Amino acid sequence: MNIQEQMQQLAARAQAASRLMAKASPAAKNDALAALAGLLETRQEAIAVANARDIAKAEAAGMDTAKLDRLRLTPKVLASMAQACRHVAGLSDPIGEIESVKQRPNGLMVGRMRVPLGVVCMIYESRPNVTVDSAILCLKAGNAVVLRGGSEAFESNMALAGLLSEALELAGLPGAAVQLVPTTDRAAVPALCKLDEYIDVMIPRGGEGLIRSVVEAATMPVLKHYKGVCHLFVDKGADLDNAVAVADNGKCQRPGVCNALECLLVHRDVAKEFLPKVAKALGGKGVEFRACPESLPLLGPTAKPATEADWGFEFLDYILAVRVVADMDEALEHIAAYSSHHTECILTSDHARAMRFLREADASMVGINCSTRFNDGGELGLGAEIGISTSKLHAYGPMGVTELTSQKFVVFGQGQVRG
Amino acid sequence: MNIQEQMQQLAARAQAASRLMAKASPAAKNDALAALAGLLETRQEAIAVANARDIAKAEAAGMDTAKLDRLRLTPKVLASMAQACRHVAGLSDPIGEIESVKQRPNGLMVGRMRVPLGVVCMIYESRPNVTVDSAILCLKAGNAVVLRGGSEAFESNMALAGLLSEALELAGLPGAAVQLVPTTDRAAVPALCKLDEYIDVMIPRGGEGLIRSVVEAATMPVLKHYKGVCHLFVDKGADLDNAVAVADNGKCQRPGVCNALECLLVHRDVAKEFLPKVAKALGGKGVEFRACPESLPLLGPTAKPATEADWGFEFLDYILAVRVVADMDEALEHIAAYSSHHTECILTSDHARAMRFLREADASMVGINCSTRFNDGGELGLGAEIGISTSKLHAYGPMGVTELTSQKFVVFGQGQVRG
Repeated sequence: MNIQEQMQQLAARAQAASRLMAKASPAAKNDALAALAGLLETRQEAIAVANARDIAKAEAAGMDTAKLDRLRLTPKVLASMAQACRHVAGLSDPIGEIESVKQRPNGLMVGRMRVPLGVVCMIYESRPNVTVDSAILCLKAGNAVVLRGGSEAFESNMALAGLLSEALELAGLPGAAVQLVPTTDRAAVPALCKLDEYIDVMIPRGGEGLIRSVVEAATMPVLKHYKGVCHLFVDKGADLDNAVAVADNGKCQRPGVCNALECLLVHRDVAKEFLPKVAKALGGKGVEFRACPESLPLLGPTAKPATEADWGFEFLDYILAVRVVADMDEALEHIAAYSSHHTECILTSDHARAMRFLREADASMVGINCSTRFNDGGELGLGAEIGISTSKLHAYGPMGVTELTSQKFVVFGQGQVRG
Repeated sequence: MNIQEQMQQLAARAQAASRLMAKASPAAKNDALAALAGLLETRQEAIAVANARDIAKAEAAGMDTAKLDRLRLTPKVLASMAQACRHVAGLSDPIGEIESVKQRPNGLMVGRMRVPLGVVCMIYESRPNVTVDSAILCLKAGNAVVLRGGSEAFESNMALAGLLSEALELAGLPGAAVQLVPTTDRAAVPALCKLDEYIDVMIPRGGEGLIRSVVEAATMPVLKHYKGVCHLFVDKGADLDNAVAVADNGKCQRPGVCNALECLLVHRDVAKEFLPKVAKALGGKGVEFRACPESLPLLGPTAKPATEADWGFEFLDYILAVRVVADMDEALEHIAAYSSHHTECILTSDHARAMRFLREADASMVGINCSTRFNDGGELGLGAEIGISTSKLHAYGPMGVTELTSQKFVVFGQGQVRG
C-alpha cells in the first residue's frame, strides 16, 4: 500500500469515527478524558520507555540541550497533561446547544444547533504534549482527530496516541477518533492535504515554512497563524509608568511567544519623557532597541538605528523596534502596513481615541490599556486553546472548544410547504 | 502587464478599498445602496446597450432561448435589482457590534466585535443580476468585492459594476470596493486563487467543475456547495396527506434548484398506504420515480427500478428517487451514505424520533415537518443570501450579511499586565 492509500484509509477511519463522536453523550466524552488522565498517571513507565528512544535518537543526532528538554516527558509534564484532561472534562459541552430560535411569519421556528466540525487534522512540530493537549480539545468538541507530530517525537507521540485510543474505548467511544499518522514519511502531509472528502479542516502549528506548505497544498480550509508581530501604541496622555510596565510585560515576560511585543509606537508628545524610562527599564534587562531616528537618541546604549526590515519583524527575542509617530493616524497606518493581524494594543486615557483604535486596528485581539500577552485562550476565558487564528474565516483569535465546532440550521415545522 | 500582475494590482486596490469600507458608517453604506437603486432606474438605456451586445453575441453563438432569457436585463429585472438594493439598505448593520463582554478575574473585560472579512472574491457563471445581488451584500458587510462573472454576460456585468462604483463614490466611499475583472481571459481565475495576501475568501457559484477548480487552486478559504441532494424521510405515524403535499412541494415547486427534493425515504410501516398517494399526486404531474424493489410496485406507471447511481444523485428535474427503509436507523444510514450535507427533513409525529433526527442528520439545514425548499436565506430569516455553504468551516447553510463578517476579540483594560 502506498502512502496515498494509507492516508486515505486512515482518513476514512477518522470520518467513520467522527460520526460516532458526533452523537456521543457529554458523559461519555468526559469519561474518556478522565480515563486518559488516569492512564497518563498509571502508564508512566511505558511512556518513559518510548520517550527514551526518542531522546537517545535525538542525542545521537546532536540535538541541543534546550530542545532535548522540551522533548522530555518528565513525571511533571505527564502530570500537567493529566490535569489538562480533567480541566477540559470540566468545561461545558457545546454540542447540541440550540441558539436563537425565532419564529418566521409562516410559523416555522428557526434556530442554529452546534455540531462538531467532523475530522480535524493537526500538523505540528512542537513537543509531544501538544499531542494530548490538541486531541482532548478536538474530542470534547465531538470531532475525530488525525495527528501528525514531529519526527523527533515519533515514539513518544505513538505511545500517547495509543493511550488516547485506549481511553476512548474504555468510555465506549471509537478508538479511531484519535489516530497518529503511523509513519515519519514526509509524503504523508501532502497526501493528507488532498483528502478533503474526509478531512474537514487542517490546523498546522509550527514554523512559517510548514504552515505555508500546508496552505498551498490543502484543498480543505486551514486554520493558522504565520506569526505574531504585536504592536503597542503609547498615546499622549497615557499613564507613562504603567506604559513602561506594560511594554516590559509584553517584551520581557516571555519573548519567544507569538503574543510577545515586537514594536512600540510612541506619540511624539510623550516620547521625550517616556522613552528614557523604557531605556532604563527594558534596556536595563538587556533589551536591544531598533529605533527610528527620532527615538534613537532617547533610548540609551542598547539602541541601534532601525532598518526597514525591522518593521513588521517577529524578533521572538530581547529586541524591540521603536518608532515615534505624530498622531493616531500615523500609528494606525504603521499598524495597517506592518501588522500580522495577531494582537494590537493601545495605552490611552482618551475615550474617543481608545474606541477609534478598537474599531480600526485589524487584529485577532485589540486591547485598550493592557499587555499584548493577553491574547491567549486561557487569558481571554476560552478555558483552553488549540491555537490562534489570524485569518478571519471561521475563527479570528484563540480557538477553544467552541471554535472546533460549527452550527447547522434547525427548523421546527408543523407541515409547512413553501409558497 | 501580464494577467498575474494585472490581478495582483486589482486585488491590492481591493484591499486598500476594504480598509476604508471597514470604517465606513452604516449611513454611508446605505447611501451607496440607495444611490445604486436610483442609478439602476435612471441608467436603463446605457445598461440596455451593454446587454444588447451580450445578447447579440450569444445569439450569434447559437445560445438557446431559455439561456438568452436569463441573460436579458429587462426593465422588470432591473427594477427587482433596485428593490434588492433598498431591501439590503434596510437590513441592520452588523459591523462594530460587540457581543458577550465578560469580566475576567483580573478585571479585564473581554468581548467580541463584529468586523468585515476584508476582500471577497465572487466567481460565478450565472445571470448578470448576481453581480448586483452579491456585491450589495458584501458592501453592506463592509467588505470590498472582486467579481468575476461569466464571459457571456461580460458587457452587462461591466455596465453594472460601473454603476456600483459610481454609487459608492456618490456616497463618499471608494469606487474600487467593487471591481469586475476587466477581461474574459481564463487565466484570471487561477491567478486570483493565489492572491491570499489580498483576498480573504473565494465564493464560487456555478457548476461543480468550476467550484472544484477553485477549491483545488485556492490558497485562501473557499465558501461553497457542490450540490444539493436533499432527502425527506416519511416516518411511520406521519400525517400522510401532509407528507404528499410536502414531497410535492419539495420536488415540483422548482425542480432545478439546490434545495429541491431528490430522494424520498419511507418507513416500511406506511409505504403501502403512502406511496400510491405519491404516485397519484407526483406521478400525475409527470414525476418519474427511481424506485427500490419494495417501492417499485407501489409507484405506478412512471416508476423505474433505481440503480445505485440514483442514490445521492442531484436530478434537478421531475425525477425522484424513492426507497423504503425498515426504521430510523436505516433512514439515517442512507442519509449519512448519500447526503450532500445540504438539507435533510423528517415528517413525524413522534417527538423522540424528531429530536434524534434533528441531532443526527448532518446537513446545513435539518427540518422537522417541513419542506426541503425552506433552506434559503430569505426563508430562514437572514434577509438575503449570497449562497449556501455545505462545508462547516465559517458558515454552514445560507450565508447572509452576518456570514460575510467575522469577530475579533476586544479587551477593555485598566493597565493590566500578565502575571
